[in-house]
Amino acid sequence: MIKTKHKSPLLTTERLLAFSDGVFAIAITLLVLEIKIPSHEDIAHSGSLYRYLVGLWPSYLSYILSFLAIGIYWSNHHWLFTFITKTNHTFNLLNVFFLMTVSFMPFTTAILSDFIMDPVNMHTAIIANCIGFLLPIIPVFIVYLYAVYQRRLVSPHLNQRFIRKQIYKLASGLVFVTLAVCLSFRYPYVALALIIACMMLYLLPPDAPVYDEEPIVEEAIA
Amino acid sequence: MIKTKHKSPLLTTERLLAFSDGVFAIAITLLVLEIKIPSHEDIAHSGSLYRYLVGLWPSYLSYILSFLAIGIYWSNHHWLFTFITKTNHTFNLLNVFFLMTVSFMPFTTAILSDFIMDPVNMHTAIIANCIGFLLPIIPVFIVYLYAVYQRRLVSPHLNQRFIRKQIYKLASGLVFVTLAVCLSFRYPYVALALIIACMMLYLLPPDAPVYDEEPIVEEAIA
Amino acid sequence: MIKTKHKSPLLTTERLLAFSDGVFAIAITLLVLEIKIPSHEDIAHSGSLYRYLVGLWPSYLSYILSFLAIGIYWSNHHWLFTFITKTNHTFNLLNVFFLMTVSFMPFTTAILSDFIMDPVNMHTAIIANCIGFLLPIIPVFIVYLYAVYQRRLVSPHLNQRFIRKQIYKLASGLVFVTLAVCLSFRYPYVALALIIACMMLYLLPPDAPVYDEEPIVEEAIA
Amino acid sequence: MIKTKHKSPLLTTERLLAFSDGVFAIAITLLVLEIKIPSHEDIAHSGSLYRYLVGLWPSYLSYILSFLAIGIYWSNHHWLFTFITKTNHTFNLLNVFFLMTVSFMPFTTAILSDFIMDPVNMHTAIIANCIGFLLPIIPVFIVYLYAVYQRRLVSPHLNQRFIRKQIYKLASGLVFVTLAVCLSFRYPYVALALIIACMMLYLLPPDAPVYDEEPIVEEAIA
Repeated sequence: MIKTKHKSPLLTTERLLAFSDGVFAIAITLLVLEIKIPSHEDIAHSGSLYRYLVGLWPSYLSYILSFLAIGIYWSNHHWLFTFITKTNHTFNLLNVFFLMTVSFMPFTTAILSDFIMDPVNMHTAIIANCIGFLLPIIPVFIVYLYAVYQRRLVSPHLNQRFIRKQIYKLASGLVFVTLAVCLSFRYPYVALALIIACMMLYLLPPDAPVYDEEPIVEEAIA
Repeated sequence: MIKTKHKSPLLTTERLLAFSDGVFAIAITLLVLEIKIPSHEDIAHSGSLYRYLVGLWPSYLSYILSFLAIGIYWSNHHWLFTFITKTNHTFNLLNVFFLMTVSFMPFTTAILSDFIMDPVNMHTAIIANCIGFLLPIIPVFIVYLYAVYQRRLVSPHLNQRFIRKQIYKLASGLVFVTLAVCLSFRYPYVALALIIACMMLYLLPPDAPVYDEEPIVEEAIA
Repeated sequence: MIKTKHKSPLLTTERLLAFSDGVFAIAITLLVLEIKIPSHEDIAHSGSLYRYLVGLWPSYLSYILSFLAIGIYWSNHHWLFTFITKTNHTFNLLNVFFLMTVSFMPFTTAILSDFIMDPVNMHTAIIANCIGFLLPIIPVFIVYLYAVYQRRLVSPHLNQRFIRKQIYKLASGLVFVTLAVCLSFRYPYVALALIIACMMLYLLPPDAPVYDEEPIVEEAIA
Repeated sequence: MIKTKHKSPLLTTERLLAFSDGVFAIAITLLVLEIKIPSHEDIAHSGSLYRYLVGLWPSYLSYILSFLAIGIYWSNHHWLFTFITKTNHTFNLLNVFFLMTVSFMPFTTAILSDFIMDPVNMHTAIIANCIGFLLPIIPVFIVYLYAVYQRRLVSPHLNQRFIRKQIYKLASGLVFVTLAVCLSFRYPYVALALIIACMMLYLLPPDAPVYDEEPIVEEAIA
């Protein structure tokens, strides 16, 4: 397969994707563990199991939101790797950095669902959750820039305007969510609403990659 | 591979399946964590480890039932994707929605196994478990309808009667389990028996996809 | 791919393997969660973190044994599926049944490591662990018989004597471990030693599949 | 595929990689579970959720370090298997042994993050973490030696000097980290610094495999 001599080798993305899908799958499935199974004391405190389960609605809500958030990140990762078709050691590590921020989400989710009903700490919980949602956007941006810079890991046929447009889109996403994080220190509910609005936008299909007939640079890699 | 220009791209199902298999595998393996490992107080309370382990039978039972339930959902997902051979962004998200309901099952399972022996809360626990079992059927139905509508993600050769028959089957499954959930509010044991009967039915092999020689619509996608 | 009409379809084993590998990987990685991270009370009780960590040796031991056990089951599953090259709905469910018993192992492991030092309950803990080790052998045997019966899911070229020999081998493994479980009720240490001896045997490479030039039955499936 | 008669069969690495990627993905994602979600008592003790979250910095740090550590091990495993292209039963088990040490890391990480701020037990925690970091290097070395010995599982075209150079590199890594572990008993901070320096080195891209035109030994396997 890879028969290179003294050159930093380009690898196929197969294992990077398998590993990433694994991490996404686990992070998303761990979310259910944050919905606390009641002890008999919890039940005594709530009055009945029924009341306890109904009273868990903030946990259900944050479960749904976080599942959607990780699902959206997965879906966009999926989309990115329809046109990023190669990888190398540095890119593998950048992707690990991205996964590190995705895997962190079950923690900020748990914080939100545990403290959303606590008037004193709710504010901090929302800030934590906004930061948890922002974090993965930073490495996504770096991953994208690294891959398209001099068409390092994408096809030489990939349309230049498509590449630029995605940079603008990713950058505005970054700005938007950073704004939400900043706002969250003052207006937590507004920030939360912004994050949810942002997620709604990401539910829309991303742009399909556009390819030119003529390659822009010489195809250096077979 | 995918060289489209300004068109919503159809993707291969490879990563969707890898991600889904990961979520199924984790959700099913997390079930064992709901069988509580005894503390020394638990042992003191039961008399001996032996009695404690024997007394755990509701946990074993709900472990087996839930493992079977997720296994059946996996097996049907497997079957669905023998004839759904393409995906797109919207379908990826519908699938995420389906996985969200599957991943929720370890929670309702834990509720059932913790409260099946508690005469006061057992009723609620059974309702919760029936709902947990119903939930994934709803997105399965949506996923199916979305995929076969105008043969969006299936082969143009797929037999029309086969498609219709599966709609009826899925719809009756949905009606059946909804009925069980409604019944569970009044007659919990009947509901539980219905759910188990329903699972037995799903152990039977599903229909094999039937293909026609002639495509029904023009094959728009290469 | 699969273009059958009104016939129980044979599927490729791709997703069955992906799903199984996922379950094996999770079950084996969950084992580390059974090694209890000390609370500050645990440390106070032990004297120091150092003494606590040294005193955890039964946990390390049962971690190693269980990791090896699941690793061996994975390796044998790997081997089985070098000659089982097709699957169907029933076989998928038999495999789910096998995975159910493998996923149960982290529980019996936790029991062993928590009670190996407790003179009163140690005996029960060893029995539980022997049963945990036995359980997967039963579905392995069923899975094997189902697959080779009338060469249902194996190549028609697979050598008949090879098939028979494996039946004897699997059956003797089953007898051997059942014996160990029976013994464990009387002589726990002997049983534990037998299980470990059995694991050592499974570390040896399994037989390589042997194929004949001529198929034994007509090749019914393309 | 594999049609051998009475010979220890060489298998493709496909499932070995799927299984390993699964274990890596889970071990790395479990790390987030070690960051303790506060109970209401924890909050009362810290003063506020905000202070609690800020005070968790050792947990964040050890999360990042361990994520990076497992990520680096994954990346090197990835690299190893660009030139190890076959496997057998023994190699499968050696790889399981390697995964056993990787899966152990969430435990030593948890120890570090729980006791880094405890002046009495910090020293032990650092030793434990150094050992946790060292452990996987031993089986990596064995795995490598087993695979390249008489070019058992690598291409006969793989350059001899490349093979030797990697042995020296792996051996020096082993010596370096063993040294750090030894030092950790006396100078914990120095040891921790060495480990981090070592990780920085591993962030550099590994050597690309070099292949010769002429095979060194006869290609015995088709």
